[in-house]
Amino acid sequence: MTNRRGRIFFNGAIHEVRPAADGRIELADGRSLLDSEAHWLPPLAPRTIFALGLNYADHARELDFKAPQQPLVFLKGPNTIIGHRAHTRRPADATYMHYECELAVVIGRHAKDVKRADAYDVVAGYTVANDYAIRDYLENYYRPNLRVKNRDGCTPLGPWLVDAAAVPDPMNLRLTTSVNGKLTQQGNTGDMIFTIPALIEYLSSCMTLAPGDIILTGTPEGLADVLPGDEVVTKIEGIGRLINTIVGDDDHSNVGGQT
Amino acid sequence: MTNRRGRIFFNGAIHEVRPAADGRIELADGRSLLDSEAHWLPPLAPRTIFALGLNYADHARELDFKAPQQPLVFLKGPNTIIGHRAHTRRPADATYMHYECELAVVIGRHAKDVKRADAYDVVAGYTVANDYAIRDYLENYYRPNLRVKNRDGCTPLGPWLVDAAAVPDPMNLRLTTSVNGKLTQQGNTGDMIFTIPALIEYLSSCMTLAPGDIILTGTPEGLADVLPGDEVVTKIEGIGRLINTIVGDDDHSNVGGQT
Repeated sequence: MTNRRGRIFFNGAIHEVRPAADGRIELADGRSLLDSEAHWLPPLAPRTIFALGLNYADHARELDFKAPQQPLVFLKGPNTIIGHRAHTRRPADATYMHYECELAVVIGRHAKDVKRADAYDVVAGYTVANDYAIRDYLENYYRPNLRVKNRDGCTPLGPWLVDAAAVPDPMNLRLTTSVNGKLTQQGNTGDMIFTIPALIEYLSSCMTLAPGDIILTGTPEGLADVLPGDEVVTKIEGIGRLINTIVGDDDHSNVGGQT
Repeated sequence: MTNRRGRIFFNGAIHEVRPAADGRIELADGRSLLDSEAHWLPPLAPRTIFALGLNYADHARELDFKAPQQPLVFLKGPNTIIGHRAHTRRPADATYMHYECELAVVIGRHAKDVKRADAYDVVAGYTVANDYAIRDYLENYYRPNLRVKNRDGCTPLGPWLVDAAAVPDPMNLRLTTSVNGKLTQQGNTGDMIFTIPALIEYLSSCMTLAPGDIILTGTPEGLADVLPGDEVVTKIEGIGRLINTIVGDDDHSNVGGQT
């Protein structure tokens, strides 16, 4: 499968990798290692990270919100992004922290005023995101509070960037999340309120999209609190299976890669 | 004055410049040109751009808001940043577009959990920002809407990055805005609700600050609508004088630099 690539730290450098047989991944020079042995980076260094609130009707109902009339978009900083198999901290004072399995759309070209019919022309590919939220700090006026959505390492991304050409229908992909092996969230990208083409048209109507921009397209219903020690697997059909582990606020494991 | 530097496009490359005598600026090799002749870039390429809402009590009153209990922070994308003497578009459908003169704090080090007393240790320097807002699109839930604060080129920055050591008291600087030569906004950084050390403590309590991060610290009262053709000058005592011109939504001037 040469239509997907990831990035790992290996022997003092960053390498591009591709999937190989038997749960292995392969460097360009033919060296290979097990997925579970690799020190994964996010599949790309992101530029602007757009995220959607309440973009699945079932999830909006779950949180007691009406479906939005316009896309609810916010930005995330580069500090939030970590790779496959890394660790995410649960803040010591959090009362509720949940995962959010999301299809991440990666932009491949500079583009302004893109019409819906041409939107897929500007997509480089897709990957899996887990856009964790801390459901505290619901202060007035400006939302979401940075403490809800912008903590270090709160957005695992990867493992693979899958070429757009290899995903014939991104609006019909099954999403699932499992916590410690138990299925807790499931949905389909077909249930998005604002589709991928609609989001690209909306965003590019007031700003220029650029290569490396990432759109996190929202999450379906099925949220649950996660605690230190939990292994959270977010999976999207045909895109990838992203593993993340929750640790305590003062945990320093995985600093050098795998524990 | 070697404690301040800017960046310009000159002869097919990007150059660092410093102020020289008689309204001139100087390249490292001694070549000089007039400030008004230069093709200015922002003084740095920003990483995360944090912006503050309602951080001056007088401005919060002006907009009929209560002063916030916690900093109201949002993020801006790199598409918003342009340099000194560039042009900012007024959207064709905007009913009200105003300037906001703001002190921009540039972070110089990676830092987490910085205490107020140590906050200035992580500051590299200061510059001037004009954080334009389109006062439409006040939709529910998530604010500010990207169309209010995240349009291409809606945040002029510069001209100079001034070394922190050259600014002994950043919490006592006069800010002014003039439109077509007429003074329309004035204030003092001493009127911030959350001071620079308080903001650095707050932000670094939940995320790691990094070199190139910029904090736009909010604006005092005195906002007014601006229209195509207006020249807007935002000035901060000891930091710089940033010139920007408003143009129409379909204006393509200044593509190569000065008109």
